[in-house]
Amino acid sequence: MGNIIVGQSGGPTAVINASLAGVFKCGKGNNLKVYGMVNGIQGLLEEKYVELNQEIKTDLDLELLKRTPSAYLGSCRFKLPNMEEDTEIYEKIFSILDKINVDKFFYIGGNDSMDTIKKLHTYGSAKNKKIQFIGVPKTIDNDLAVTDHTPGFGSACKYIATTIKEIIKDATVYDAKNVTIIEIMGRNAGWLTGAAAITKSEDCNGVDLIYLPEVVFDIEKFVKKVKKLQKNKKSLVIAISEGIKNKNGINICEIEEENTVLDCFGHKSLSGTANNLSKILHRNLGCKTRAIELNTTQRCASHFISEVDINESFLAGSYAVNIALNGETGKVVVFERTSNRPYNIVMKAHNVYDIANVEKKVPLEWINSEEGTVSQELVDYIKPLIQGEVYPIMVDGLPKHLKLNK
Amino acid sequence: MGNIIVGQSGGPTAVINASLAGVFKCGKGNNLKVYGMVNGIQGLLEEKYVELNQEIKTDLDLELLKRTPSAYLGSCRFKLPNMEEDTEIYEKIFSILDKINVDKFFYIGGNDSMDTIKKLHTYGSAKNKKIQFIGVPKTIDNDLAVTDHTPGFGSACKYIATTIKEIIKDATVYDAKNVTIIEIMGRNAGWLTGAAAITKSEDCNGVDLIYLPEVVFDIEKFVKKVKKLQKNKKSLVIAISEGIKNKNGINICEIEEENTVLDCFGHKSLSGTANNLSKILHRNLGCKTRAIELNTTQRCASHFISEVDINESFLAGSYAVNIALNGETGKVVVFERTSNRPYNIVMKAHNVYDIANVEKKVPLEWINSEEGTVSQELVDYIKPLIQGEVYPIMVDGLPKHLKLNK
Repeated sequence: MGNIIVGQSGGPTAVINASLAGVFKCGKGNNLKVYGMVNGIQGLLEEKYVELNQEIKTDLDLELLKRTPSAYLGSCRFKLPNMEEDTEIYEKIFSILDKINVDKFFYIGGNDSMDTIKKLHTYGSAKNKKIQFIGVPKTIDNDLAVTDHTPGFGSACKYIATTIKEIIKDATVYDAKNVTIIEIMGRNAGWLTGAAAITKSEDCNGVDLIYLPEVVFDIEKFVKKVKKLQKNKKSLVIAISEGIKNKNGINICEIEEENTVLDCFGHKSLSGTANNLSKILHRNLGCKTRAIELNTTQRCASHFISEVDINESFLAGSYAVNIALNGETGKVVVFERTSNRPYNIVMKAHNVYDIANVEKKVPLEWINSEEGTVSQELVDYIKPLIQGEVYPIMVDGLPKHLKLNK
Repeated sequence: MGNIIVGQSGGPTAVINASLAGVFKCGKGNNLKVYGMVNGIQGLLEEKYVELNQEIKTDLDLELLKRTPSAYLGSCRFKLPNMEEDTEIYEKIFSILDKINVDKFFYIGGNDSMDTIKKLHTYGSAKNKKIQFIGVPKTIDNDLAVTDHTPGFGSACKYIATTIKEIIKDATVYDAKNVTIIEIMGRNAGWLTGAAAITKSEDCNGVDLIYLPEVVFDIEKFVKKVKKLQKNKKSLVIAISEGIKNKNGINICEIEEENTVLDCFGHKSLSGTANNLSKILHRNLGCKTRAIELNTTQRCASHFISEVDINESFLAGSYAVNIALNGETGKVVVFERTSNRPYNIVMKAHNVYDIANVEKKVPLEWINSEEGTVSQELVDYIKPLIQGEVYPIMVDGLPKHLKLNK
């Protein structure tokens, strides 16, 4: 039997390395040599890879790896050309894989990364190559099709909800009118912003308004709504997705200033949505307003992760190896929620063609844009994913991470 | 013997309620009735207070209180007038305190709040009032004079350093040139930004440059320095204080746009320093740059606090009650570090006149502004304060907080 190679791609999560640990442990357990691509497919093209058996030597290393944020192997945002446009790059990849006798290829990533699995699988099939390609899901955005949810989402929700609970405490501490706007990641899908809804509990009133990018954002109605709420409550806390747009499809962050940059997938890099709304509210209400952008910490806060999430991430990695050993290729590991109370999932292998480049959004019936609320269904959907804690391994007061000696 | 009253003032910290718990527990242990001002002195003037014995009923309540972020009693930013200008407000305060038979007054806060203790003590002494006034130190900024450090600082450092370690992992994940600028709280004192220096360890290269507000920030030199570093390292992570200023004393956040507001103490409300520098670097270097403002979370992230800090905060509260019982007034609880290895402090009572309104800055000899570094002394000073962890009490996946039923 040949060797395994595994890579990580796209934006990191707090638990992406748990999936890497799962692939590694299951591969090693089956006496396979496990290679790691350094900086994903982009690095592989430069023959940058490591033998993971040389890097992860002890059980403690494996535990550290699981709790290390961001992609241990490095990541990339690299889109393969269509095979009709350029076969050379494909031949190069396959020849590099041949050279190190790899016949099982795992890629941990979101819907852009699954495009890589799809294209490599398609090319390999067309050319009768004997390499299997399996995708391992990962994205804090939770916008992957078919799967109930994605590894990384639960920990991001736990961190976001915890932080928002703390910010609500902070924001309501003065006896003075003020509005806090919290900007949460999510260009087109508002899943993460949904985490703001789960803060409402016995000890917390929760956020006062929530806006997701699935629905048109009306600034005038928003200002009116805030004015109305302020009559009965001095401190308001509002959660918004970075990607909310007006009826013309213009992102709210672009309304006041031009600050968009395109990444290599043609996605706009957004920032300043909360900041813009904060300025608009300040002009209209006169009270103190402030913008809090949760920013990168949402995807790398491994100091406070969900036990359910890290365990599922690990198992998704080992499940990927198992289905490859069973002969699958061109598949992505997906979760099916078989029960919500008690929470239970089963893992399955699903055709990558249904998943690559597809964005799954929050169902419109879960969003009430007039009221600035979301439904209980969204809360019930998220809640099981944030349960339990796995704390970092602490050394000298700080979390210890595993570092690749590249 | 009379009753106790305790209030919280100024910006919250993650452990400010541990000091409140200390005052309460020690007061209750001495069979004293403990009142809490709601929204500090501002609320007291409106006769807003609660009987804490009615609110904190169980040992679990007390533990929850210690781990609840932001001021449990509410806070204020209220500056008392000089007694020469207005005696009426003082008479009102003393008459309210008389009404509920209070003879010991505790105020948990920073150097602005200590101004309140100073003025009340001064007025009370001049008018022969029999009320004792004691300050309990609190500020993430660590800019209080006389004391070795302040409760709240250690937890903020632990959170900032942990988050920066995670951001460094995230920022260095792609094999592409980029610069990340992390903005840390601190208008005039760079203590918190010093926490960025303690990230350097076996598993982390640390930040590449650090700039504190104590020293003039030269944008041209900065851009040159970054250009030079980028020749050998693709991903750079830079930590700056929000308050860094150029040689004309202009805050860097004000250079590109006018976005300053004064608070009631005449402090400028700053934001956007990292954002401005990020734009400047992008124009000069052409590579991807991004700004991360750590923001309010620095002072309210009670989900990840320092054990040393929360214990000292609690003890500072109970020590305050003890010195009052010993007859002290017009004093602030201060820490004296008697040893660094092993770390040890003793608490003392110090004259409030030396502390109110005084800002303690990072010693200039600990800062190398040419190199963008800080000295080992600053690292050695901070390290003992971040040791140990006290995790939240978790309920249904999220930290549980104690809520005041006001």
